[in-house]
Amino acid sequence: MKALQVGLIGFGTVGRGTWDVLRRNEEEITRRAGRPIRITWVATRTLDRAREGLRGIDGVNLTNDPQVITRHADIDIVCELIGGVEAARAVVMDAIAHKKHVVTANKALLAHHGTEIFAAAHAQGVMVGFEAAVAGGVPIIKALREGLTANRIEWIAGIINGTSNFILSEMRARGATFDTVLKEAQARGYAEADPTFDVEGIDAAHKLTIMSAIAFGVPMQFGKAYAEGISRLHQEDIVYAEELGYRIKLLGITRRAQDGIELRVHPTLIPAKRLIANVEGAMNAVLVKGDAVGPTLYYGAGAGAEPTASAVIADLVDVTRMHTADPEHRVPHLAFQPDQMSDVPFLPMGEVETSYYLRMRVDDRPGVLADIARILADREISIDAMIQKEPSEGEYQTDIILLTHRSIERQLVDAIDKIEALPTVRNKVVRIRMEALN
Amino acid sequence: MKALQVGLIGFGTVGRGTWDVLRRNEEEITRRAGRPIRITWVATRTLDRAREGLRGIDGVNLTNDPQVITRHADIDIVCELIGGVEAARAVVMDAIAHKKHVVTANKALLAHHGTEIFAAAHAQGVMVGFEAAVAGGVPIIKALREGLTANRIEWIAGIINGTSNFILSEMRARGATFDTVLKEAQARGYAEADPTFDVEGIDAAHKLTIMSAIAFGVPMQFGKAYAEGISRLHQEDIVYAEELGYRIKLLGITRRAQDGIELRVHPTLIPAKRLIANVEGAMNAVLVKGDAVGPTLYYGAGAGAEPTASAVIADLVDVTRMHTADPEHRVPHLAFQPDQMSDVPFLPMGEVETSYYLRMRVDDRPGVLADIARILADREISIDAMIQKEPSEGEYQTDIILLTHRSIERQLVDAIDKIEALPTVRNKVVRIRMEALN
Repeated sequence: MKALQVGLIGFGTVGRGTWDVLRRNEEEITRRAGRPIRITWVATRTLDRAREGLRGIDGVNLTNDPQVITRHADIDIVCELIGGVEAARAVVMDAIAHKKHVVTANKALLAHHGTEIFAAAHAQGVMVGFEAAVAGGVPIIKALREGLTANRIEWIAGIINGTSNFILSEMRARGATFDTVLKEAQARGYAEADPTFDVEGIDAAHKLTIMSAIAFGVPMQFGKAYAEGISRLHQEDIVYAEELGYRIKLLGITRRAQDGIELRVHPTLIPAKRLIANVEGAMNAVLVKGDAVGPTLYYGAGAGAEPTASAVIADLVDVTRMHTADPEHRVPHLAFQPDQMSDVPFLPMGEVETSYYLRMRVDDRPGVLADIARILADREISIDAMIQKEPSEGEYQTDIILLTHRSIERQLVDAIDKIEALPTVRNKVVRIRMEALN
Repeated sequence: MKALQVGLIGFGTVGRGTWDVLRRNEEEITRRAGRPIRITWVATRTLDRAREGLRGIDGVNLTNDPQVITRHADIDIVCELIGGVEAARAVVMDAIAHKKHVVTANKALLAHHGTEIFAAAHAQGVMVGFEAAVAGGVPIIKALREGLTANRIEWIAGIINGTSNFILSEMRARGATFDTVLKEAQARGYAEADPTFDVEGIDAAHKLTIMSAIAFGVPMQFGKAYAEGISRLHQEDIVYAEELGYRIKLLGITRRAQDGIELRVHPTLIPAKRLIANVEGAMNAVLVKGDAVGPTLYYGAGAGAEPTASAVIADLVDVTRMHTADPEHRVPHLAFQPDQMSDVPFLPMGEVETSYYLRMRVDDRPGVLADIARILADREISIDAMIQKEPSEGEYQTDIILLTHRSIERQLVDAIDKIEALPTVRNKVVRIRMEALN
């Protein structure tokens, strides 16, 4: 049967991985897809290096102009693997305009322009695959979009940034500071020279935006996401959390609440006995709570050449299997049919309800705790657990660590303002959110 | 758009769960599927009870004759939820003969008759969905068949029997014996009155047979599966394993080895730090190793009314989305195209290579360990770790616990025969297999 022809745009880590896996497993992939899938065109800015890498291989053409591929009559599927937002958007929109199916690993692109891209694809009758955009090789998009279709999704909580999870794992295992571990991660190539996207939660917020849309049938609204990273996490809070039976993870959480949808990325205390609390190193894991199935968890490598290629190629096979079928039979891009999206709002962070870990440095004298407890009680914030350390020899200050029950963030922020205004409280209150995930 | 009409055959736990979830989430499911899915017929042997349960509900018809449904002109999809093998086979084959799509949760049926059923479905151009047959609500069939299509699957290791995992979790947590925990599990409805299928590994072998076929593109061959259960596991081996840094789980393992495919269910030591070693209670988890993606893990409820219904309905939505598309566009039942199945053999258990935990009761005198070590060395079985306990006060015997490196099962069985023949060895050698899962 005639091969499906793929044009790769971008030949960096993921592009090269896709090329390698597709060739190595060609026989099995063809047996699954029903027809061969061939990369016949590659576009790259570094033509010389690509020429070197592809030396001696027949049937593949090179160009440095993406439009040669997006407009080529023989190309069935365009793989956008250049990353970034604006150039990638131009490539994807041009491919769709020329009735090519698209496969992309680009979470930033979709979080910002997904609505426009899926509308254009729908109008042109082509498919856009993006399994690789969330959690790398873990087929979480497919699970949400097809595996859990029976469920009203209640919430999703994911470790979806491998760099951050690697740093947090090392901080906990070795008692090292954020700065130390980040430098090592950069030296070993686990973190970028500018790590902002990873450690400040922006990359995770991109991925969370995509999952939220699929879970709840809402348009992608990255602008509504709250993102707080791990760069200001103190080693001692990891230790206190451990004492209390918790681990700190950078979680992306999206939840269907009474009045809207929560969409938030932040360091989070979770009970140490939960499976997801034990996901270590650069691995990803997504915990999904459905009303019928209960909690399910999906775990695997969230980045890297071949894990990402695994997801890119899964999309290529899906497109191949459906290529000539009429559009009404295809799985909808965002799980729900395009005319069935909901306009339920995303909640501002102040309206979110969660539990909190609070650490404060206080004078060691009578009445301090009573003042703090009154401020919390006045705002209906109740205390779940507490550690108060004995002051060290010769010191007159000590740490109080409080865990609260579920409270409204706005109330909690107000309480912290009042606590910090007490003359007996000596520092800014450290506040980390906490989720039971049960 | 016209509703897809479903006939439920069987209205027990899963049938009732499917009914409940489909009604409760009707609005969201329709938004995903693109058209309504309605149960219009229910067949059950207990008509009175079903009538009571469905009182006041319009548009559903009851019968005690499955053929009324399998041959009804208006029915699009037949859901077989009666369980068992022969009666279920008759229902499914009759439905296929009358060009109905089929959704089933029946692992025993597929493990025994899958080849025949999928061939008939292929000939008639209908789909057979069976997501619910393995790991309940966890979409592991979809992950293997669609999510990981890029990969050469190297092995799968799964906790795929909730009853056994519940018993093992309780034995470890409370130091209780198998018999004690089983009786409690039966009292609480977690285990059947006759628990053989669950605790002897047969149910797990059914599920493993199905996963193996999908992973490796081979026909289902339940007869080639090795099944060993947990009923003869001693509490003390769980404790010794723990001391050595391992947990004991009933794993279904299928692996692509040099000369064929391994297909085996048995209690297995796995490193305690692996995520899958921390799956507790009645939950299921499947760890899949692909050559590109590396290890991925899928976790969730493996049984129960609504988790199983979640998978049944996911299949209903898949069938609905594809219903009128021509068959060539559908995902192949067993992941590989039907004319692309492989005839690679399954390996007999004697040819399987794995590591072992051995416990033996020996006289506490010089030379005993040397004799045992020589027997192992002569068969190229090398020792990875050992515990030798001091004898208790006034005793002249002690336990030796050995962990071996990877060895051929046939050699190991021969070594155990020779060890048991030593006059200084006082009991049958306890042998539990061990997997690093890395």
